[in-house]
Amino acid sequence: MMTDFQDWSLLVQQRMETALDRTLPPADIAPQRLHHAMRYAVLGGGKRVRALLTHAAAELCGANPDKADVAAVAVELIHAYSLVHDDMPCMDDDDLRRGKPSCHMQYDDATALLVGDALQSLAFQLLAQPGLCNEATRQLEMLHLLAVASGSRGMAGGQAIDLASVGQSLTQEELEYMHIHKTGTLIRAAALLGAYCADTIETARVHAIAQYAQSIGLAFQVVDDILDEQADTVTLGKTAGKDAQSNKPTYVTILGLERAKLLARELLENALSPLAIYGAEAQRLNQLAYFITQRSF
Amino acid sequence: MMTDFQDWSLLVQQRMETALDRTLPPADIAPQRLHHAMRYAVLGGGKRVRALLTHAAAELCGANPDKADVAAVAVELIHAYSLVHDDMPCMDDDDLRRGKPSCHMQYDDATALLVGDALQSLAFQLLAQPGLCNEATRQLEMLHLLAVASGSRGMAGGQAIDLASVGQSLTQEELEYMHIHKTGTLIRAAALLGAYCADTIETARVHAIAQYAQSIGLAFQVVDDILDEQADTVTLGKTAGKDAQSNKPTYVTILGLERAKLLARELLENALSPLAIYGAEAQRLNQLAYFITQRSF
Repeated sequence: MMTDFQDWSLLVQQRMETALDRTLPPADIAPQRLHHAMRYAVLGGGKRVRALLTHAAAELCGANPDKADVAAVAVELIHAYSLVHDDMPCMDDDDLRRGKPSCHMQYDDATALLVGDALQSLAFQLLAQPGLCNEATRQLEMLHLLAVASGSRGMAGGQAIDLASVGQSLTQEELEYMHIHKTGTLIRAAALLGAYCADTIETARVHAIAQYAQSIGLAFQVVDDILDEQADTVTLGKTAGKDAQSNKPTYVTILGLERAKLLARELLENALSPLAIYGAEAQRLNQLAYFITQRSF
Repeated sequence: MMTDFQDWSLLVQQRMETALDRTLPPADIAPQRLHHAMRYAVLGGGKRVRALLTHAAAELCGANPDKADVAAVAVELIHAYSLVHDDMPCMDDDDLRRGKPSCHMQYDDATALLVGDALQSLAFQLLAQPGLCNEATRQLEMLHLLAVASGSRGMAGGQAIDLASVGQSLTQEELEYMHIHKTGTLIRAAALLGAYCADTIETARVHAIAQYAQSIGLAFQVVDDILDEQADTVTLGKTAGKDAQSNKPTYVTILGLERAKLLARELLENALSPLAIYGAEAQRLNQLAYFITQRSF
């Protein structure tokens, strides 16, 4: 089964690379430096976990994979913009991303700022393209969902809480609140946008996917904290142990390594249970849940 | 006529303040500091020229002013985000905005970065709200238009060209190219979004408004350069003479003051001519054109 999953995820990753390449403005069109930097920040890397979620949810809902590509690209553009801005000196100040110099190191701070800004616009431009949904009102819902997930009560808000938490001792609840915003809302949006690409919407499936995504989003972060604690910089592709060093609370610092691993397993079960009634139809979402939570153990 | 215009523009500005206040998340909702800073960056200032354009164009097309409010707020949020990011140390490094400390001075760089990011998301969230247009497909066109106007081939791209032009000697054509992107595309979008709020779209009017907006967008920038040359910091509310000091090419440095004023008058005529056939129906757009170009002389 997992070999089959590897083939599938490789296929989706390849589709993504092609779709992202086509979506991003060519580097020879003015302003060249900005377009070059946008491509640098987005292409040629990343596990594309969010895109995999979009495609897996699309599959459970019977959506056309070509439409899922568009939704997945929009989500990956938002994710990429957030990484570019998060790495900047005034934020996490990280020199490495996916094993390469981060965008502001490769170019400069002003370019990185504009790269993030322009990637965000591009994500919404893409989701607004005519005919993505058979119903324009549903497409508006998709845009609304992505905007809320990205904004001050979603990803950007989570990042603000994260910054404010440096040097603070948080409870597990407060840490969860931060991560639900910082990464959870976009992961949830990634899965739901895949579901919304279907021509007909079955409410029960969309609810099951939302529940799944909620748990898997948190699990993703718990595993990230475990990886950050365990891995070295080379395997991680970004500066390892950075969060602990910079005095940021993590699941590992709050719970300890073993209890963090237990929590990840519990979240995995919570993610899988709402999908049980769909059996093999939900196989990609199931496999993805295992993939996300078992990266490290 | 101009007294009447002053009353009208004051009314629109008050509508805007109310609409922006309602749209922005309250400062007592988490993350408080981010929401506080978003409100600081947007409320209580600015001539709201883009909102005036949206409302004036909406009036020529017979659109409901309540719908025009929504479109105008979306445009003003994009404009406000661009000012917050432009003022940051890695960009124009400006300490003053509308006579107050700029956002990163009042808060900090990380907060200012997130303020801009979240304001952009909020603009798209707002335009995606159900029922803004009687036709959902037209609403998708509005979202697409605003996204293109904000992105790498619109405002963010113009800012990239602006940064690259520091210390360069540009021709008038190159300067025009930069401004069409940096401010022109958003001004054009502001007017067109007002037109798109109408229940029925008359193509000829939309074209006339697009032509008008193209000229008035450039005129706006020429006048800005003239003001920047002439005004002192107190009247301008931002650091005066900054562009010339920082070795940025302006219409005044390229053309000289008198020819820059002539160009502004010529652009005013180009803006007015496509509207002539609409007579008094276009009075707000006409008055606004005079207002924009005669701020300084």
